[in-house]
Formats: sequence, structure tokens, C-alpha cells
Amino acid sequence: MKKLLPELSYANSMPVIILVNPQMVENIGAAARVMANFGYRDLRLVAPRDGWPNDKALVMGAGAYDHLGDVRIFGTLKGALSDIHFALGTTARQRDMVKPVYGPQEAGDEIKARGGATDHKTALVFGPERTGLTNEDLCLLNGFITVPTNPDFPSLNLAQSIALMVYECVRESQTSRPQLDYGDSQPVGGEEFENFMSRLITELDEANFFKAEGLKESMTRSLYNIFTRTDLSDQEVRTLHGVISALIGNKQ
Amino acid sequence: MKKLLPELSYANSMPVIILVNPQMVENIGAAARVMANFGYRDLRLVAPRDGWPNDKALVMGAGAYDHLGDVRIFGTLKGALSDIHFALGTTARQRDMVKPVYGPQEAGDEIKARGGATDHKTALVFGPERTGLTNEDLCLLNGFITVPTNPDFPSLNLAQSIALMVYECVRESQTSRPQLDYGDSQPVGGEEFENFMSRLITELDEANFFKAEGLKESMTRSLYNIFTRTDLSDQEVRTLHGVISALIGNKQ
Repeated sequence: MKKLLPELSYANSMPVIILVNPQMVENIGAAARVMANFGYRDLRLVAPRDGWPNDKALVMGAGAYDHLGDVRIFGTLKGALSDIHFALGTTARQRDMVKPVYGPQEAGDEIKARGGATDHKTALVFGPERTGLTNEDLCLLNGFITVPTNPDFPSLNLAQSIALMVYECVRESQTSRPQLDYGDSQPVGGEEFENFMSRLITELDEANFFKAEGLKESMTRSLYNIFTRTDLSDQEVRTLHGVISALIGNKQ
Repeated sequence: MKKLLPELSYANSMPVIILVNPQMVENIGAAARVMANFGYRDLRLVAPRDGWPNDKALVMGAGAYDHLGDVRIFGTLKGALSDIHFALGTTARQRDMVKPVYGPQEAGDEIKARGGATDHKTALVFGPERTGLTNEDLCLLNGFITVPTNPDFPSLNLAQSIALMVYECVRESQTSRPQLDYGDSQPVGGEEFENFMSRLITELDEANFFKAEGLKESMTRSLYNIFTRTDLSDQEVRTLHGVISALIGNKQ
């Protein structure tokens, strides 16, 4: 039979979809449905407003949940990201953070390239309907996705925004992306990365780095912004632990 | 201001969106909203089940109708197509008709190419939620659009399907790379970066970090690998200088 359409290129590991504080259960159902349409399996909810499981979300999903794994609930985004190596989140407004900003297609290409690599788990993160992701959540991410829309009417419906990105991450792309060559080392997972970051913050706290009260939050975000951009390997994280130990004079 | 994202390429004439026998007014509202998001103006309804105008569809549109021209109502698809030169309609199932079948991206490219030509009016046609377009309607079209989906769960939600196609018909085809948004800060030049790196190396040397002779070279390379990937801003370099100072207990 003649091949009429380009094949969808299902990566070994599809991105995890994470909805942070979703307010309308209809949108959870719509997310589940479009995920099943495109062969995704891992849906995670961070503190959904109306709890879970939820009958209305099940109805809206139109049977999609049978095609997904168990929907998992987390208290915080940090928790939901604990096994994730690379996460991008959608944001409509300009944010004052130094992070890569992707268009939908570039984001899809990046996720596909990374998802194709062994043991590299990716995620797409969506904030609540009205407010979007907070700065505290955004600083945990490796980059932002912004869909270029009409400046006079920019705000996309959450379910449609999820549909666009879910589609972009399986669509066959014409271009290939450069990939980091980790050699014998491994990309670092969420928890190991988080351990490094908390140690850095703790040591800095003890060294009186965050003098003023308000400074700690913004400095912490800034440090997250720096290190989420680096795609650290396990070997590099060991090196950086060594750097901290050496600098505080605690040779181990 | 620096351009961060690829521009949307609004064609001279955006495609008209035609919904045939829409059953759920929510989907009319969702269509209007995503059309306004992407700068479309012409929405046409063929025999909507619940009549028009409809309060619920207006609410679901979230103000989108202010950005569109008048929504026009037709009794038949043929009537709605009377001024259209080229129309594609979505269909999930294989139809026994000899028509070109487009994937979403190919359909978008075709619509953009034709819409750019003077006086060539294009349309995207969507059928009712459960049944899709009838064969009578399909034969009026110049081709079909089929989104390749999971064969076990193929049916897209109408609002999401509209979102995909509306997006595909304005999306720029060529790819570009994500860029960092530096906001008020500046990317750091070679010398400033090098100053930071040499200070780091020097402090580590004094802290006896490079114990073995051979280790220094490889460790230094590793640290360069980490920080050359980060595209640091000037503000971030100041932060990292502060981190070093704090850790070595030399508050400046």
C-alpha cells in the first residue's frame, strides 16, 4: 500500500506530561485524550484543584485512561520532576530569567532528540489556566516554550496548548539536533541534580551568602537557572561536589 | 529589542474556518479562541445544532469574537464554500475517494502557499464531533487532512484538531534554534568568562582540589565543559564570583 502520510516518530521514551495545579477537570481529560491519541503514557498532576480521581475528568477523557499508565499525583513540581532529566514548561509572558526560550517546533525537536537518547527522561510542564507557572516552578525547568500568538489575544486555551505540544513532540522533523556526547558518563537525573543543588544552597547559607532575607529566593532561582542549563553528567556532578568541598576547606 | 522567536507568517489571506454541523457549542468557542490567538478572522458555521448566536459559545470564546469578523451561518457546506478556491477537510477514517491526503504539515504548507497568492481564498473544513464529514461533503473538497494518530485511540477532540490545523497554517516551516532571553543582563564575553574560570581554578588550586598532577588538567577541562555550556550572563558571573567568595569564607 502506498504510504500516504509521514510516520509519527514515536521516541523510545515519550515525554512525561505534567499539569501543575490544573483548575478545570475538563482540561485534565483533554490532556489524557490527546496523549492517548499520540501514544503518550505518563500523565502527572501536581496538586489538582478538584482532587483525583475525578469523575468528570474521566468522562472528558473518552476512554483515554485505558491507554495511559496510572495517573500519578504529586504535592510539588519538584517531586514530579524527581526522575526527569530535561523539562520544558510553557509560559506566555516574558520572564526575567536567563533560560532558553523555545518556539513549539524547536521545543519538539529538542524533546525528540533527548528522548531518543537512552535513559534520558523528558517532560513538558503546563501551569494552571489563569496564572501559568510561578517563578518558583519555572526556575526548576531547563527552558521555556512560548507559542508566538496574536499580541492582542495571546492566551491559548490550556487543552489546545497541550495538544500543540504533544503533537510537536511526535511530529517528524526535517532537522536533526546536536546532542551532547556523554561518553561513559550518564546524564544526571532529577534527584541527583536536586541533591547537588540543595547541598550548594545549604553550604552557601552556612557561609552567610544570602545576607538579606529577600536575596535568598532570587539568588537560589539564579543558581537554578545557571545549572539547569548545563545538562550535567554524573561525573560532572561529582566534580562540582568536589569543588564545593574544596572551597569550604573540607577535603573529603 | 532582540527577536526571540520565529515570526508567525500571516498570509495575505488566512484560511477560512468552516465547522459543519457542530454539536457542542464549547467547540465553536474553542475554535473562535484559537483563531483569534493566531490572527484568523473568518469563521463560518454550517447548520450548527444549537443555533446561532449562542451564549455558551460566546462565553467559551473568552472574548475572541471581538477579534474576528462576523460569524456567518450557512445551510449547506456548498454555500459556505461559494467564494473559496481551495478547501481541505479533516477526516479520520480512510475514505473511498481518490483525493490527495495530506498530513497536517503538508496541509499547512499547501494552504500557506495558496493563501499567499492573490485572490486565492482557502478554507479548512471540520465535520461534526462524532461522525465527521459525510461523503457528500467530502467530495466538495480539494483534499483531505489526516492526522496520524495512535491506531488504538485515533479520534482527536474537535477543538484540539482545529488548534493543530490553525497552528500548522501559520507556522513558519523552516527551523531555527532557541535563544536565551537575557532580559536586562548581557551575555558574558570571553575575557570576563575567562576571568571567572581562572579565579575558580586558582581558588581550587589553593584549596588543594587538584591533588594528583594529572588530575588538574582533566578536572580543569571538565569545569570548562560545564560552564561553557551555560552561556552565562554578566549578572550570573557576579553571582558565581559571590558563590566562590562565600564558600572560601572570604566575604567581599
